[in-house]
Amino acid sequence: MQDTDILLRDLDDAGILRLTLNDAGRRNALSEAMLAALAAAFAEAGDNPQVRVVILAANGPAFCAGHDLKEMTAGRAAADGGRAYFAKVMAMCSATMQAIVNCPKPVIAEVTGIATAAGCQLVASCDLAVAADTAQFSTPGVHIGLFCSTPMVALSRNVTSKHAMEMLLTGDMTPARRAEEIGLINRAVPPAGLREASMEMARKIASKSVMTLATGKRAFYAQREMPLTDAYTYASGVMVDNMLARDAEEGISAFLEKRSPKWQDH
Amino acid sequence: MQDTDILLRDLDDAGILRLTLNDAGRRNALSEAMLAALAAAFAEAGDNPQVRVVILAANGPAFCAGHDLKEMTAGRAAADGGRAYFAKVMAMCSATMQAIVNCPKPVIAEVTGIATAAGCQLVASCDLAVAADTAQFSTPGVHIGLFCSTPMVALSRNVTSKHAMEMLLTGDMTPARRAEEIGLINRAVPPAGLREASMEMARKIASKSVMTLATGKRAFYAQREMPLTDAYTYASGVMVDNMLARDAEEGISAFLEKRSPKWQDH
Amino acid sequence: MQDTDILLRDLDDAGILRLTLNDAGRRNALSEAMLAALAAAFAEAGDNPQVRVVILAANGPAFCAGHDLKEMTAGRAAADGGRAYFAKVMAMCSATMQAIVNCPKPVIAEVTGIATAAGCQLVASCDLAVAADTAQFSTPGVHIGLFCSTPMVALSRNVTSKHAMEMLLTGDMTPARRAEEIGLINRAVPPAGLREASMEMARKIASKSVMTLATGKRAFYAQREMPLTDAYTYASGVMVDNMLARDAEEGISAFLEKRSPKWQDH
Repeated sequence: MQDTDILLRDLDDAGILRLTLNDAGRRNALSEAMLAALAAAFAEAGDNPQVRVVILAANGPAFCAGHDLKEMTAGRAAADGGRAYFAKVMAMCSATMQAIVNCPKPVIAEVTGIATAAGCQLVASCDLAVAADTAQFSTPGVHIGLFCSTPMVALSRNVTSKHAMEMLLTGDMTPARRAEEIGLINRAVPPAGLREASMEMARKIASKSVMTLATGKRAFYAQREMPLTDAYTYASGVMVDNMLARDAEEGISAFLEKRSPKWQDH
Repeated sequence: MQDTDILLRDLDDAGILRLTLNDAGRRNALSEAMLAALAAAFAEAGDNPQVRVVILAANGPAFCAGHDLKEMTAGRAAADGGRAYFAKVMAMCSATMQAIVNCPKPVIAEVTGIATAAGCQLVASCDLAVAADTAQFSTPGVHIGLFCSTPMVALSRNVTSKHAMEMLLTGDMTPARRAEEIGLINRAVPPAGLREASMEMARKIASKSVMTLATGKRAFYAQREMPLTDAYTYASGVMVDNMLARDAEEGISAFLEKRSPKWQDH
Repeated sequence: MQDTDILLRDLDDAGILRLTLNDAGRRNALSEAMLAALAAAFAEAGDNPQVRVVILAANGPAFCAGHDLKEMTAGRAAADGGRAYFAKVMAMCSATMQAIVNCPKPVIAEVTGIATAAGCQLVASCDLAVAADTAQFSTPGVHIGLFCSTPMVALSRNVTSKHAMEMLLTGDMTPARRAEEIGLINRAVPPAGLREASMEMARKIASKSVMTLATGKRAFYAQREMPLTDAYTYASGVMVDNMLARDAEEGISAFLEKRSPKWQDH
């Protein structure tokens, strides 16, 4: 890891992987390079047995300002006016967001400053989010003629309809306290306590069985898209398999014996 | 436009169309005539390039009291006991509500007083809603043996399950402040500031590109019903087309050049 | 009814059926016997014309602590390690939860103390819920290596994504006031007022037409899983049938004549 990398990686002894967006000069824009770095990092986090939970943080005053508009605009020079290039960038971006959802390790956004457009989508795509109470969120594409249509896929799966529409149609900034009220983030805290707040969440999660977390996270997003009866049939099957896994046997035994469990992968 | 019309229309220079329910004597009931007037008005608002955003307001102390029960009851005199008539009214009503959802121009409800039954549905069907803090909302059909089954289609797509069920099963009034908390409306304000609050929202939206708003609104309701992966594939395609539209090129250029954009249709 | 029954039943003159979990020594765990008793009770409540609304309450300090882990663990002794047994228990549990959803009578959870794991699911599965402000909710399976995958089916249909994920991934307790904010329950009240709070809700609902409540409850859960257009087509059909029912004719006539309705089944 070099300090000049646009995405820093730091894995501690507890299995907490801190990914830090490190392109403050461009307000951590989701350039092609940044999207590729994120996609690779989440794939590796999924595969690496040392990683138990991921924190997605950022250097600089902005958390993430969304796509890199200069890079996007340069794409217009192509013979097709940019169509193939835009399609490629959108596919990369959507794949990266879904890499977070599909990553078997829980992902916590630690939001220092503004999170706008695809930056807001990044927060919405994480499983959990804590933010400095000075942070702000917006989907401002409407200001520049480019509606935040992909960000709204994640946003509308986090907050209710009128709240999402207000952000999307006005482009207004939503302060962290309001973001907490509408469910876009779990918690807003004073900036000085932000890192401790996300670490506290991460430590709790890192103390659990990796197998159990992976089972549950995958099941959460799968069952959410099913009708109720199908969701119960599916989730019941997940529970049965989970019961038969070694970590559940150990966890339940430890609970009944009033001792701490010893997970297979710890 | 005549003052005796049941639906008043007023289009200002900024492209803000104010539709005003004007049947205060019947508490702005959704009579057949009112439903037809609303459906026509939203169809025209969609087609009229001068219209950029719609405010749905009301004259009189009640915003809208839902269906016209006297008119409905008169329908029972038919040979079939009213079945064909009721089916016609329900089809008209559902079509009107969906005309709001499908209208390419954003629609803001400006709620002065009570909004009950299909009147509550009207608010829930708008993209955004602001209300006087003296306004109240309810789905009181359960009091008269007629469950608010069509209103709940819109209501349950705005608020969470227990909140919707409380309104539907008890028929109780929900004050505007509580409606704000549960997400049925965006904001409750003192009555004296209501018009300014909805106009402020409307002016912001009217300053945007009509093409962009139409693109985003359509995509919002379409993607919401898709599984996550399909939603991303769809929304990515919408973004690519949006990028290639003239207003996005202009908007992004204006942003990079730190000037105001000049939309094609302004 | 005997005081030694694990599920007490008490039907009052107003048609309010109080079901009381009565296995305080096991913190009202959802043992096989309890699941069977609940499923039978909800089936009977649905069939019994005297029952208009159901309150689900509990004796002892805990509302319900979820599955009976000792019973589950004993199942491991089978030749298949418990697979068939676990599948049976999960199927029973899911069927019981869906029996609440499918019961034509509205169901109100009256939550005295902690509601954890499948106990939290029980609350989430009820149509309405009131809780003592000292009650707490959690999905703590992650602590014992067994993710609360079936509880999350109900939980994620009550609260937004980040709120559900925080409960599921951390296993933390959610105090009643917070549960109220996120929509898991309708209301938190001081313990001394809990019974009156649930009874007030129940009395309101018991004064309505049983036919109308059954029609609306069934339609609520059915339409919620449909795309918007299908939901309107379906709900419009429900409204037409409801209009032609005797209780709607009576209810609307009573309303227009400013008198109290007399329901067919009262």
